Amino acid sequence: MITQINPVGAMDLLSQLEVDRLKQTSTSDLYRLFRNCCLAVLNVGAQTDNSAEILDLYKSFDINVLRRERGIKLELLNPPDAAFVDGELIRGIQEHLFSVLRDILYVANKYQNNSVINLTSSNHITHVVFDILRNARAIHSQANPDMIVCWGGHSIKTEEFSYTRAVGFQLGLRKLNIVTGCGPGAMEGPMKGAAIGHAQQRATNTRYLGLTEPSIIAAEPPNPIVNELVIMPDIEKRLEAFVRLGHGVIIFPGGAGTAEELLYLLGILLHPNNANEPLPVVLTGPKSSEAYFNQIDEFIGATLGAEAQKRYKIIVDDPLAVARYISDKMVEVRKYRKSLGDAYHFNWSLHIEPEFQLPFEPDHSLMSSLDLHFDQPAASLASDLRKAFSGIVAGNVKEGGIKAIEKHGPFKLDGDKALMKRLDVLLQAFVDQGRMKLPGSVYHPCYEVLT
Amino acid sequence: MITQINPVGAMDLLSQLEVDRLKQTSTSDLYRLFRNCCLAVLNVGAQTDNSAEILDLYKSFDINVLRRERGIKLELLNPPDAAFVDGELIRGIQEHLFSVLRDILYVANKYQNNSVINLTSSNHITHVVFDILRNARAIHSQANPDMIVCWGGHSIKTEEFSYTRAVGFQLGLRKLNIVTGCGPGAMEGPMKGAAIGHAQQRATNTRYLGLTEPSIIAAEPPNPIVNELVIMPDIEKRLEAFVRLGHGVIIFPGGAGTAEELLYLLGILLHPNNANEPLPVVLTGPKSSEAYFNQIDEFIGATLGAEAQKRYKIIVDDPLAVARYISDKMVEVRKYRKSLGDAYHFNWSLHIEPEFQLPFEPDHSLMSSLDLHFDQPAASLASDLRKAFSGIVAGNVKEGGIKAIEKHGPFKLDGDKALMKRLDVLLQAFVDQGRMKLPGSVYHPCYEVLT
Amino acid sequence: MITQINPVGAMDLLSQLEVDRLKQTSTSDLYRLFRNCCLAVLNVGAQTDNSAEILDLYKSFDINVLRRERGIKLELLNPPDAAFVDGELIRGIQEHLFSVLRDILYVANKYQNNSVINLTSSNHITHVVFDILRNARAIHSQANPDMIVCWGGHSIKTEEFSYTRAVGFQLGLRKLNIVTGCGPGAMEGPMKGAAIGHAQQRATNTRYLGLTEPSIIAAEPPNPIVNELVIMPDIEKRLEAFVRLGHGVIIFPGGAGTAEELLYLLGILLHPNNANEPLPVVLTGPKSSEAYFNQIDEFIGATLGAEAQKRYKIIVDDPLAVARYISDKMVEVRKYRKSLGDAYHFNWSLHIEPEFQLPFEPDHSLMSSLDLHFDQPAASLASDLRKAFSGIVAGNVKEGGIKAIEKHGPFKLDGDKALMKRLDVLLQAFVDQGRMKLPGSVYHPCYEVLT
Amino acid sequence: MITQINPVGAMDLLSQLEVDRLKQTSTSDLYRLFRNCCLAVLNVGAQTDNSAEILDLYKSFDINVLRRERGIKLELLNPPDAAFVDGELIRGIQEHLFSVLRDILYVANKYQNNSVINLTSSNHITHVVFDILRNARAIHSQANPDMIVCWGGHSIKTEEFSYTRAVGFQLGLRKLNIVTGCGPGAMEGPMKGAAIGHAQQRATNTRYLGLTEPSIIAAEPPNPIVNELVIMPDIEKRLEAFVRLGHGVIIFPGGAGTAEELLYLLGILLHPNNANEPLPVVLTGPKSSEAYFNQIDEFIGATLGAEAQKRYKIIVDDPLAVARYISDKMVEVRKYRKSLGDAYHFNWSLHIEPEFQLPFEPDHSLMSSLDLHFDQPAASLASDLRKAFSGIVAGNVKEGGIKAIEKHGPFKLDGDKALMKRLDVLLQAFVDQGRMKLPGSVYHPCYEVLT
Repeated sequence: MITQINPVGAMDLLSQLEVDRLKQTSTSDLYRLFRNCCLAVLNVGAQTDNSAEILDLYKSFDINVLRRERGIKLELLNPPDAAFVDGELIRGIQEHLFSVLRDILYVANKYQNNSVINLTSSNHITHVVFDILRNARAIHSQANPDMIVCWGGHSIKTEEFSYTRAVGFQLGLRKLNIVTGCGPGAMEGPMKGAAIGHAQQRATNTRYLGLTEPSIIAAEPPNPIVNELVIMPDIEKRLEAFVRLGHGVIIFPGGAGTAEELLYLLGILLHPNNANEPLPVVLTGPKSSEAYFNQIDEFIGATLGAEAQKRYKIIVDDPLAVARYISDKMVEVRKYRKSLGDAYHFNWSLHIEPEFQLPFEPDHSLMSSLDLHFDQPAASLASDLRKAFSGIVAGNVKEGGIKAIEKHGPFKLDGDKALMKRLDVLLQAFVDQGRMKLPGSVYHPCYEVLT
Repeated sequence: MITQINPVGAMDLLSQLEVDRLKQTSTSDLYRLFRNCCLAVLNVGAQTDNSAEILDLYKSFDINVLRRERGIKLELLNPPDAAFVDGELIRGIQEHLFSVLRDILYVANKYQNNSVINLTSSNHITHVVFDILRNARAIHSQANPDMIVCWGGHSIKTEEFSYTRAVGFQLGLRKLNIVTGCGPGAMEGPMKGAAIGHAQQRATNTRYLGLTEPSIIAAEPPNPIVNELVIMPDIEKRLEAFVRLGHGVIIFPGGAGTAEELLYLLGILLHPNNANEPLPVVLTGPKSSEAYFNQIDEFIGATLGAEAQKRYKIIVDDPLAVARYISDKMVEVRKYRKSLGDAYHFNWSLHIEPEFQLPFEPDHSLMSSLDLHFDQPAASLASDLRKAFSGIVAGNVKEGGIKAIEKHGPFKLDGDKALMKRLDVLLQAFVDQGRMKLPGSVYHPCYEVLT
Repeated sequence: MITQINPVGAMDLLSQLEVDRLKQTSTSDLYRLFRNCCLAVLNVGAQTDNSAEILDLYKSFDINVLRRERGIKLELLNPPDAAFVDGELIRGIQEHLFSVLRDILYVANKYQNNSVINLTSSNHITHVVFDILRNARAIHSQANPDMIVCWGGHSIKTEEFSYTRAVGFQLGLRKLNIVTGCGPGAMEGPMKGAAIGHAQQRATNTRYLGLTEPSIIAAEPPNPIVNELVIMPDIEKRLEAFVRLGHGVIIFPGGAGTAEELLYLLGILLHPNNANEPLPVVLTGPKSSEAYFNQIDEFIGATLGAEAQKRYKIIVDDPLAVARYISDKMVEVRKYRKSLGDAYHFNWSLHIEPEFQLPFEPDHSLMSSLDLHFDQPAASLASDLRKAFSGIVAGNVKEGGIKAIEKHGPFKLDGDKALMKRLDVLLQAFVDQGRMKLPGSVYHPCYEVLT
Repeated sequence: MITQINPVGAMDLLSQLEVDRLKQTSTSDLYRLFRNCCLAVLNVGAQTDNSAEILDLYKSFDINVLRRERGIKLELLNPPDAAFVDGELIRGIQEHLFSVLRDILYVANKYQNNSVINLTSSNHITHVVFDILRNARAIHSQANPDMIVCWGGHSIKTEEFSYTRAVGFQLGLRKLNIVTGCGPGAMEGPMKGAAIGHAQQRATNTRYLGLTEPSIIAAEPPNPIVNELVIMPDIEKRLEAFVRLGHGVIIFPGGAGTAEELLYLLGILLHPNNANEPLPVVLTGPKSSEAYFNQIDEFIGATLGAEAQKRYKIIVDDPLAVARYISDKMVEVRKYRKSLGDAYHFNWSLHIEPEFQLPFEPDHSLMSSLDLHFDQPAASLASDLRKAFSGIVAGNVKEGGIKAIEKHGPFKLDGDKALMKRLDVLLQAFVDQGRMKLPGSVYHPCYEVLT
């Protein structure tokens, strides 16, 4: 099956050089990256956590860039059916394909072999994050603070899903916008709910922003309701994009990925320079997930301390209270930014240490040498804990991680015994609650906690 | 509590004469009509079927038209809370208030004391229906056939509601638009579902059109997702608006009102002039409502005959099949209109006999003299049957009907015994299934079938 | 030659009844009115002052309304060439045709046989003026005071034309909008100039509003740059529309029509109720027209007195000063309206006596019985003087007037000898300066002043 | 005087790094380039050909980039008055300032120190031209061929100016768009005329595209009617942008710069690969400029031969004929591009030899070593002749050129005597006709032709 797709947005214009770069199919890393991300986007609604499986399933899938008199077209060969309605590509997915093209070309053309930008310098990294988002038009200078980050699992229960939708509805009624990791589950529910709230308020320019990156996109294919998709180059730039774009954060139940995000966030907020940062953080879920949040809260208290616990608020089973709390806090965020002369649209003044910015590519050696001890500043411990969870996510769902585990066995995590004990309990709870994998599959841990 | 509301759309401009007409509060029928419709609109989400109750509940509600340098404003005194989010009126409701103002002023200014228009002439009535819809911008000349009428009960079960949403989602994915009676239940579900489907397709100019009329609006307050609201002057013009604007009809489970709509539709389609009319009609619901549709189908078969049964298709528990069937039929509708030189946006060529156009205002005398016998053309029987159900709706939920029943006891329905028997069975089924009244209330029949 | 024209705006939707009214070609007054106005619109750029000539020239012209699946079309038979570029109708003219259709149908459908509206009642007339303008979307509620009325001759010298364009450019740079009688000459120059000024300011929603009426449109065919055209039913409603919509008035050199407009304006402004009305009025032209304005000023001084002279300001040869004066005055207009609670978009509080509102249809008897004596209030004298000039305009260029003069000889004007003397001098100056007729034709006066 | 200017378009978003680059006032070349281009833009309407003079006149002018909560602002210190209306910056100029910012930052950030792009490779240069235009949104993929290049002098007579406006009006009526060098004279007239034609056709998305470069912008400040301004890095990329974006070329009377443009164009069109290129080229002016075009035509005939003469058409005193010829040719251009699969929006298939692409920065040595002999291919001779004229333009109006002439005396041009003779005659004609300098100044030739 062959389909030709018209472009959307400014991506109808490519130069001959750019088309050529995307054509060298067999040899080109760029082409492979582009093809795999497009496949993930087309595989919408797929129920799998295993990126490798998807790539295996659609070996015959191919994508070509064609030049035409009114610009370019994309040619899809043997694409997954899920993206089509009565033989026609869903428009949301069509836009996502061109978002992939946009971001992948932009980063390749501008930052590969660019000797002016130093990708180990903190403010250069921040510049790149900003520049990629700006190129994707994901930064809206005229808007007031209204971007609410929603984090949570891609594999959640029906009741939890309904809850995320109810929260989204209340956010939408308050004209707040949603930014998520853009996959299914807790990343989709808030957007669906907000869409109904926005419709009732006739909100225009509503934003359902999805931030993803090449290694995660296959396991979390963007929902078509996502109306802005940005492919950041790696997980750390994606996390930085979340916290600099977002004006509030809501964390729903989730697994290792959600824990990684929470630890990343707390690690940053614990830095003394960010002591006055008014970013609201809410942990919330239906009544049935109260125990889950208590476990998380206890773990944070025991590892990062009471200071860290103060940076978030737990609200159980009350979507209206969540939306009101977040909505009220927007005034404070605005006032704070104004007082600093900082932009509403990008939190330049949030301090992020390089240890949270430099790419962490987990392997067995790095995982086993993480510094998981109490006797260090809370922010540093948060950084290493977040890396531990990041490795577990990789081992669970990412192509590279899965292969490494297959080859070398589970990652080994070591450190203070008391800390290891708590970590083990938390991880086991995730496993028991079915948060590590989609329902129906048996979970084989990719880690071993040396207790 | 006093709130001032800015206008939306062209309704910010009123002349001094017009404002004066709406000001004569104590003596003016026009003011009373305007006030009551506004109250109904503000009472969104109210769980009651009794218009009189709502009017009683908000006796202190008042509404004033104020003139300002940039046009007019509406001043609300003691409005219901339901229409507000954190003290701010939901924008959808705000628009509805101005739709009420628009339609009520238009009909009053143009058709009261207008000696050119004869409201007993069939084509003059059709002109008025068209003119009111046009003035409300509810007729889009450039669109292809895509308006799907969804009829069904305002009081339906959760499972049925989810089903209407699922059907709406599939319609939305196919870029079809929704027109309903605009209350809750089966009138809300398809719109909510379509909104998500439309969002995935990035459909713009999506239409969630609600057609209502003054006597029904209080019992079926428009859902805020309705983005076009038209107040037709009476039930017959509202029904005519449905069948001339719609390009397909989907009937979900419902009670007397839904039966009225189905009988009206069949009565028209059975006219010989409409023999080739390709309007698709689908009766559909989840598995659990299969019995319901069988009952309806049997009743139609026994009263109007096999010819009538051919005009609809029953599809059980298959939203995708419903949407595909309707979507496919749009091609035929388009071809047919083109072959006649008829407009896509308004079905001028559909023949409607005056008995379906002239207002039927049920009272005990009219109800007991309905001609409910077999020995007449099916279309005529359909007309009287639809009047019987129309009367039952009035007795159930409309202000005037409820008062008449209180005063004179139930309406008496008489006719062929065999027909009466079947009618009684059908009505009893509606009662047993809880379709006559919202859950939680005991239903006291407003009719008596003389069997 | 036959051309079919697609509609523009909401006028693509007509009911069967409406199409029928426009079809009864031979017998229908409405059809004749519609056809003649359309012909005038198509005859853009025609250099003639004689409406009758144009109608004679295009006897074979015909126009039909056709119904199609996406609404209506207009069919033009043997239209004038001037409206076409390479065989395609100029889009501005296309819009004007549908403006004609809109206004003529609206007035006919709503105000013929409408017993609620009394067309001899002052506030009913004002309501009708407002209602016609509103229906034509010529009233913009959200705008600040920015509508500048430009009056002046359709037959002016090249130097005067350049001057009107220069004034328009300065108005455009200040984002002011233009409303004129919409013909050539001093009605076209300010719009062309403003278009360049607006382009430099990237002004959107720029307005080049033309107000005309059926008896004048043929002699002053709307320039295609006019982007809003409204056909008022008669000259008095057109004048009322000017003064209630406008926020400032600029009067360029002109002939009898311009004098009529100035006298109408002064007659109203001299009413005690309008003593505080801040409407700025500027008389302006290039150096070469200084004498012209001195003559006018003297005539006003001698007839209406110093009070009247205070209501305008003469500025010679200084476009920048004109634009700055008008622009500065907008602040005052705004403040005044706000202080009264009056609308920015329609000057409801301006008092207009019925003698300025009731249609004056000049004939020999009415013209000879005008009360042209000093011993009356200045406003009354202004009213009769304006009627005298109105009659002269009719005798010069309007179909009915020209025929009456042909049959009965020139109108006779009588009154105080001193006044007659001054009137004669002024009129003779208009003749000598070639302001009564287009260049190239010899002017035969349609009036006789009995001195 | 200090003014703060809000941004327009996407340029409200700069990263900290970018703001810093533009801040290092004393030491930064980038800042100096930015400041000087902004000054040129603000100096709209200035009557001078001497870039150096302007820079001298506004020594106290300064410009700062400020960061604010809703993005950046520009702060202007002591800007020229010409850009303001009643103290407010003309919006067109405001946009131009941000176009300068956009293009200068883009080239600096992307192409300085970019080791992937080789600026001596022909297809890399073309990629850069495309990329700069694309970033400036000057490439519209959905448009049909409609971009008409208008070349001609910035110093032309009133009659010639009126003629360029008349041609522009006819182009505008045909919905063609205009691209020029964006200064005054023959670069402004066609845009003004087209604006009126476009207004009559209600054309939206009308384009008045100005292509300039840093060394020429001061002598040819963009007219505010230019609604898209692109600063190309050098003269050769600007010329390539003209011929790849344009679908037709109209050459009005002009001086050395216009001759440079014509020779560049012919040099390219004479390449065998471009033999079938259907680009229409018209030389046109009023009756009074007939002799001028005969001189040019003779010079081309004598130097480049009859083949070159076939590539253009001379039309005297007939704006309608010019517009019709160009308009008709658009069909051919479209067909040709389609047959090649080439884009409508960018002429990829036009072959341009490196000698027309590589920057030529004239100095005395390069000028005297130009190869001005007959015994070479016409295309090569065209290339060297165009360089000769390019040098003369630099000597006449560019900062660097003027200084070089002041220091070392006039450029010496040598070659075949017969050729030198003809060149001398042509140049002298330009001088005699006042085309080398603005009126009122005495022209001191910056060249010497060794005959």
